[in-house]
Amino acid sequence: MASFSNRECVQALIWQEGKLSILDQRKLPESIDYIQYDNALAVADAIKTMQVRGAPAIGIAAAYAMALSVQQHYSNENKDWLASVEADRKVLAEARPTAVNLSWALNLMHDYLLECKTNPVNAMIEKARLVHQQDIDANKKMGELGADIIGHAKGILTHCNAGALATGGYGTALGVVRSVVKRNEQCAIFAGETRPWLQGARLTVWELAQEGIASTLIADSAAAMLMANGQVDWLVVGADRIAANGDVANKIGTYSLAILAKHHGVKVMVVAPSSTLDFTMVSGDDIEIEQREVTEFLPSCYQQEDSLVTAWNPVFDVTPHDLIDVIVTERGAAFHPFEIGIEDLNEYA
Amino acid sequence: MASFSNRECVQALIWQEGKLSILDQRKLPESIDYIQYDNALAVADAIKTMQVRGAPAIGIAAAYAMALSVQQHYSNENKDWLASVEADRKVLAEARPTAVNLSWALNLMHDYLLECKTNPVNAMIEKARLVHQQDIDANKKMGELGADIIGHAKGILTHCNAGALATGGYGTALGVVRSVVKRNEQCAIFAGETRPWLQGARLTVWELAQEGIASTLIADSAAAMLMANGQVDWLVVGADRIAANGDVANKIGTYSLAILAKHHGVKVMVVAPSSTLDFTMVSGDDIEIEQREVTEFLPSCYQQEDSLVTAWNPVFDVTPHDLIDVIVTERGAAFHPFEIGIEDLNEYA
Repeated sequence: MASFSNRECVQALIWQEGKLSILDQRKLPESIDYIQYDNALAVADAIKTMQVRGAPAIGIAAAYAMALSVQQHYSNENKDWLASVEADRKVLAEARPTAVNLSWALNLMHDYLLECKTNPVNAMIEKARLVHQQDIDANKKMGELGADIIGHAKGILTHCNAGALATGGYGTALGVVRSVVKRNEQCAIFAGETRPWLQGARLTVWELAQEGIASTLIADSAAAMLMANGQVDWLVVGADRIAANGDVANKIGTYSLAILAKHHGVKVMVVAPSSTLDFTMVSGDDIEIEQREVTEFLPSCYQQEDSLVTAWNPVFDVTPHDLIDVIVTERGAAFHPFEIGIEDLNEYA
Repeated sequence: MASFSNRECVQALIWQEGKLSILDQRKLPESIDYIQYDNALAVADAIKTMQVRGAPAIGIAAAYAMALSVQQHYSNENKDWLASVEADRKVLAEARPTAVNLSWALNLMHDYLLECKTNPVNAMIEKARLVHQQDIDANKKMGELGADIIGHAKGILTHCNAGALATGGYGTALGVVRSVVKRNEQCAIFAGETRPWLQGARLTVWELAQEGIASTLIADSAAAMLMANGQVDWLVVGADRIAANGDVANKIGTYSLAILAKHHGVKVMVVAPSSTLDFTMVSGDDIEIEQREVTEFLPSCYQQEDSLVTAWNPVFDVTPHDLIDVIVTERGAAFHPFEIGIEDLNEYA
């Protein structure tokens, strides 16, 4: 297993010397490789190919990409530079459809750019760094808040990776796990391996181990038996987009786990920064679900054109709000049935 | 993809020239390799290492193994040969714990052996061939019966492999799928990939394709979304052991799928020969669940002794009878709530 420096929270994104270094998550846990980027289009490609993934991390990468775009195109002489930035922004916006944090960050950076009166390069870089730092701060806040709500727990199950690797640092769902474990080392942490991309097996348990936190990996389909055995009290997951009624789009399998949790009396907590709330979506029905290439899990021998075997690969699903007990953001928590409370979490409220 | 001869039902077990040929299912779908066995202990190892798997196929392999044992040890002069057969039988019985068909076949062959008055070698071989043929006949009967019960269906989801590869031929759950598709080619067939061993991805869709039946592979955790979309009317699965109250032990994930089916109004059908009924088990609580090596899915970098990452790998789970709509055997079907009807399916009734 590749190791980070001793028990340090891993970092998916590092800004240094005018470039963005992205940890290549496709190569974890075997090796720790950072790739340096100096232009926005290459960052869009890194998002599309899942070198960096996780809704908040995608947002932060996009914020840095906007800074890179301005750094590359800004010119005092040629006023066309803004059109080039706008073109980059459009490509970035298309990189992945489901996480709202991407468009949130692009809009934020774009609005900020229009406010800049003088040379915007350094200002944009500083703004992206601020977005990054605010995400880490928000995660730590959510971690404490989530741990307060959970109190004593025998065990927690998480899905996919909503950790430091999926965010600016510390993590959303895994931030809560970190905070719970700090208070109670006896709490057992279970991670679903998360097919098809294996974020749980490759990222979550690795990330926890870097900080000395023990965890147990399960096949996604073993979660029901784990719950029936009484081994977990809470399901804690992140989110890629949260509609106005509290419906949550998150990694494929979250909806399944939420139904199983309800069946077994296991509580369900969704943890996400307020930038994940999308009040333009009335319900989860409005959220676009990304379908990825079936090559992600269809054995290669079935991939020829005339194959009788095909695959269906939606990589997110929508969990209706009635299966969720609590949504935690840095602005506070909203509780089932979400008819009141969720609006206060909206940063634009 | 390795191909069988044109559109023929694949065969996991073939008896020829005094030896048992077992299709090595660990190598599918890449290659079709049969390994020949002339002794019972090697067959026990083939069962343990999952070269052959699936409750009915394990039972048939064990029946042939008993014939091989008698063929190897029988002697007119030395009366100790029976002790050698008994020793082989004990090793076979330990090969895998959850499928009852294993002990069922061993007991059947043992009782038959004790009845043999003269040289038992040919008689035992013929008995094993009969067990094999009766399983195929039973599967075809169950296929028709299951298809009668299902009637018109838009789509069927199956889990693991309960097909020709898991039985003497034709299959239990996949036998029903075959019979349904014969009547209605429009019925969409979905297979869960079935982590950790990927029986669905490696065996089920391959086996169906050999006969020209199209299917769609899904990640196990996508089943809830498939059901929410209304794409399937029935979940059809096999069984490794069925308790007296109708609780069903089957591949890990079956319990999860049954809960999801109940949530979405999808019907649940369990298909298994009557040899899978174990009336010594009052309920599923009595059934031993096999735990396999975590190396089956724990990434190798976590497999060192001091790793903070461990795994939990129960390869079966128990679905309570209240989540099951119908159990189909070759002796007929029993319907929820199973308080009456299931006893008539017991071949010893």
